[in-house]
Parts: sequence; C-alpha cells; structure tokens
Amino acid sequence: MNDRPQLLITMGDVAGIGPEIIAKAWPALNDLCRPVVVGDPDWLRRSLEQAKTRAEVREIQDLHGAKPEPNKIPCLRASDQDLSHLEVGRVSAAAGRAAYDFLSAAITHALSGAADGIVTAPLHKEGLRAAGLPYPGHTEILAERTGTKRFAMMLYLTPVGVIHVTLHLALREVFQHLNREAVLEKIQLLDEVMSKLLGRRPSLGVAGLNPHASDGGLFGDEETKIIQPAVQDAREHGIRASGPWPSDTLFVRAVAGEFDGLVVMYHDQGHIAIKLLGSRRAVNISVGLPIVRTSVAHGTAYDIAGKGNADPSSLIEATRVAARLATKQVMSNPLKE
Amino acid sequence: MNDRPQLLITMGDVAGIGPEIIAKAWPALNDLCRPVVVGDPDWLRRSLEQAKTRAEVREIQDLHGAKPEPNKIPCLRASDQDLSHLEVGRVSAAAGRAAYDFLSAAITHALSGAADGIVTAPLHKEGLRAAGLPYPGHTEILAERTGTKRFAMMLYLTPVGVIHVTLHLALREVFQHLNREAVLEKIQLLDEVMSKLLGRRPSLGVAGLNPHASDGGLFGDEETKIIQPAVQDAREHGIRASGPWPSDTLFVRAVAGEFDGLVVMYHDQGHIAIKLLGSRRAVNISVGLPIVRTSVAHGTAYDIAGKGNADPSSLIEATRVAARLATKQVMSNPLKE
Repeated sequence: MNDRPQLLITMGDVAGIGPEIIAKAWPALNDLCRPVVVGDPDWLRRSLEQAKTRAEVREIQDLHGAKPEPNKIPCLRASDQDLSHLEVGRVSAAAGRAAYDFLSAAITHALSGAADGIVTAPLHKEGLRAAGLPYPGHTEILAERTGTKRFAMMLYLTPVGVIHVTLHLALREVFQHLNREAVLEKIQLLDEVMSKLLGRRPSLGVAGLNPHASDGGLFGDEETKIIQPAVQDAREHGIRASGPWPSDTLFVRAVAGEFDGLVVMYHDQGHIAIKLLGSRRAVNISVGLPIVRTSVAHGTAYDIAGKGNADPSSLIEATRVAARLATKQVMSNPLKE
Repeated sequence: MNDRPQLLITMGDVAGIGPEIIAKAWPALNDLCRPVVVGDPDWLRRSLEQAKTRAEVREIQDLHGAKPEPNKIPCLRASDQDLSHLEVGRVSAAAGRAAYDFLSAAITHALSGAADGIVTAPLHKEGLRAAGLPYPGHTEILAERTGTKRFAMMLYLTPVGVIHVTLHLALREVFQHLNREAVLEKIQLLDEVMSKLLGRRPSLGVAGLNPHASDGGLFGDEETKIIQPAVQDAREHGIRASGPWPSDTLFVRAVAGEFDGLVVMYHDQGHIAIKLLGSRRAVNISVGLPIVRTSVAHGTAYDIAGKGNADPSSLIEATRVAARLATKQVMSNPLKE
C-alpha cells in the first residue's frame, strides 16, 4: 500500500463545489493514492453528511499522522480563517484567503518532500481579489512560490495533451507575444510531460496561426517566420514535433491518433475544440514546476454549489494523473534515456 | 412529379470527384428534385461505368427536353473544351475553364427562371487560375454574374447554420475587416436563410472575438465597440440574435439546441468546430443571391479521384437543401409575415 504516492487534495474555495466533489470522490481517491485533504474539516463534514456517505473526517496536525482509509479522511486544517458563517455560492474574502492558505500549505509540504504532489479543487479569482491577493489563479501562485519562470498549463483530454502559447489575452495582443522562443518553450514543456505520461517520446502537432496555416504564405507569415523555425529547433533537440498545421483539422487528426499532444497559439484555438470534445474528464497539469500538480478542469461552479449535483469525475481523473506523474518521477526520466 | 423543383447539378472540375459523386448520387438526387447535370456527358459516362450502375446519360441541348428518370440522366453539354485526354487528379486549364463554363451556363438558366436552383460539385481554384480566370471559387463568380454585393456562404451542419464575418484572411488582418455593419449584415443574411429553412424565425448566437468574449472588457474591446452594437441593431430589426458569446462554448450550446445559427468572426473560430462536428453531411449555401445555390462542403479531392471511393453524402444533402430552398421561395417569405 505504501508504494502509492501521498497526494495533497486542496479544497479550493469552500463556497464552491470543492468540498462536495472531494466527499463524493473519496473512495476513488483512496484507491488511486494515499490522499490527504488540505482544507477545512468542518466544510468537509457538511459535504459528507449531504452526500450521505459513511466516511468520517479526521482532523490532523501534520502529514505524519495521516492514515487515509475508505471511511477515514485525514484533513489538515490549513487556514485560521473563520469559515463557519459563509454562504454557499458567494464570493468572500475569507473563502478566497482560505483557498490561498490551503494551496500555500500544500506547496510547502510538497516542496519539502513530505508529500508527492498536489491535486487542486477550484478556487475563485474574485475571492482571491476580495482577500487582497492579486493572482489570476493557482498557476501563478505555484510559479511564484516555487520560483519557476518556465512553466505552462497542459489540458489533458485523455489521451491528448494541449498547451497554449498564449492564453488570456485580447486576440489583438497575441501577435506581440508569439515568438520563436515562446513556441519552442511550449513544445519542450509538452514533450517533457507527455514523455512522462506515456513512457515514450510523444508525437506533437504544432498549430499554425492563420487559416490553412497561411496556405503557403497566402494569409500571413507567422508560420514561416515564427512557428516553422520553432518546430525545426524542437526537432534538432530530438523532439518528435511537426507543423505548423492548419488548426481546423488538427484536433480531428489528434483524436484519430496521429498526435499525442498539440501546441496551439491562442485561447480559443484550443478551447473551441476542447469544449466540444467534452471537458468532463479533462485535467489540468502544471508543467515545468519542481513539484507534481494537477487540477480539475472546471471552476467553482457557484451556481450548483451545495445542491448535491456536482460531478467528481474531473477530480478523480486529476488524481489518477497526479498519481501517475508522482510515481514516474521516482522512475528514470525518459528524457535522459 | 412536376411540383419538384428543377435543379442544375454542375459537374465542377472533371478531374476531381465531381463526376463520380454525381453518378453515385443520381438515384437519390432524382428522388429529391428534377435534376439535370450541367457538365461533360463523356466524363459522366465513364463514372457511371466505373460505378457499375445501369443509368444512362442523355445528352440534351436545352432544359426543355430534360426528363430525368432513375436510369436516365439528362446532361447539358456546357463547354466546348476538349476534355477527352485529361488525366484524373491533375490540375489543368481545360478542366478549369470547363468548370467555369458549366457554372456559367447554370447561372444563365437559373437567372432566366428556366431552372429553380443550382447545386455545385467542387472545382479547383488552381484549375481556374491555369485557365486565366482569377476567381478564388464559385461564390465570387456567382456574386459577379448575379450582380450581388451583399452575400455570404453559410455552412449548414444540419441543424446548425454558420456564417463567418471574415474568412480567408491572415488573422492579423481580421481586425481591419470587422465592423458593426459587416457583423450586422452577416446576422441579417443568416436570419434570412435560416428563416427559409426552418419556416420560423431562428435563434442566432453571435460569437465574441476575444477569449471569454473579452470577460467584461478584460481582454479586448471589439465586443463592446463592434459586436454588441451589431447584435443590438439586429434585435431592433426583429431578429432573435444574442451575444457576443464566448466562442469556446458557442458550438456546444448550439449542438444542445440553444441556437439554430451562429455568426463567427474568423475562419478557424468556425472551422475548428465544424471539422470536429464532422463535415460529411455539411452543405454550403450561398446566401443573398437572387438564385438558389448550394454546394458540397468538400473539395475536388484529387487524391482519391477516379478510385471509386468518393462519398456522395454531401452532394445528396446539398441537393436536399436546395430543393427545400427552391420550394420555399415559391411560398410566402417568412420575413414578410
């Protein structure tokens, strides 16, 4: 049993669906790893009662005492915020601050080696803002706390991984952020994480920016000036990358098995396809960090919080992937073969 | 029988899959309308032989004599190009010129009222160019010959219609072509054609340009400056349009039944979703022309031409839609109710 990695499941914003999906997912999480919840034991108890499970919360002070069992959930109380009077489905500074505290405690334990990785339930950026914490989300906190400059989020739609070169930018601003180095970095990060997940070098498809990937220069030149050279650089590093490919058929080809991973240039180029392919089982993976971290691919879902209808699939999938990555990290690195 | 509309099926580039899909689709086409092939009788005969059907070609001189039957295909020889020695799957000036001649004859007959509409098999833009005809495709020829300034192509993925505001442009150039008038025009064209197809006012979703449709102005301002005012204009004309919506969930919502039609801002915003949803049954519809015209949603497919594997589904679907539009045109216009 002890060869399973110890993973920290952070509760996120307690007024969202975090506590509920953890309560529902618990038996599955316990099969996949040695999970410890980092959050608020009282909110977890409420969700367990609502879900009518027999599992009990055991409040713990440090990870040493954690002994997860199918009906025993170790929970590290990781914030001194008073969360007792919060309303479900409402932004609050207390829930925002607590979500930050949960993540922060988990990062400390993962960096020290006391835990093998982190799986995060969703937080709410408005809650962070209300708490005076100017982060757009988990990723920036993780990057800052681990001192990481070269990182990316990969969306993993089993079996295809997707990394965006640019993300939350006006479309008009994409052009000034696209350059050969940025594209190469994302190809390398995608190669690293997909190599770990697959245990072999992945086949990577890189999207063009323009219609028909510019159709031989007819519509734009970012393909010849930026993307093609970056793909060439990657190939010289031994990466199995190809492109730039027309983005409208790239996902169809990946789904058909031609690519294990895709690098796309801007938010909707990836997300239009990702949403259509169904994000129920999608997982976010932080790539480039010195610690393993995965996340559900959905938000706090305030609109359905507390109603008992939240779907724990993405949390279970995120935990499965984190367990695989945490185990692989102990094994030989496929990039160093 | 005579209440079925008379539709002209143009053969397109004879070196592509046009003759083959017409030969295979014939019995279905004959059920849907009174079809007449406008093209080259000899190439049609070859395809019928290859498809091992019992149908025969009857070369006709004018539409009066056309009496389509399940086993009798009336074919108007509509070009004096010598096509006898052409190679299958190869660009040629003769095939390009002939494809233009077929379309041109069909337009003449449709404009005169002798035929009720046109369904086009694919032509090859390189063939047109080789013949010295500087058109990117069918649509521009149709617009020029019918003197139409206000038109669009709608991609119809039963039951959702999609119109692009901009199409074959570098992404960088999209910004200078997006304006309130252009967006409004496409919303109006979409409303017109979907009203005809559905027999009721459609529900139309209009995409934003930026991620999350700018997330309240956080990423870009085209939503507030251009798209939202155009949607408002459309609503003041009685059109059931809404938006701008985040483009990454728009197709998911349309597939779930929320929208009958979508207006998208640029090529890949529509085509990434369209290709994933499967274009086998997709149909192109010319909107805004004084004549009915639909088209297959695929190209000449030179790579499989002459091999007997081409799929006639899109041609059958295009004919079904043209027949519906040609019949509706005789009926009351739902916009004038």
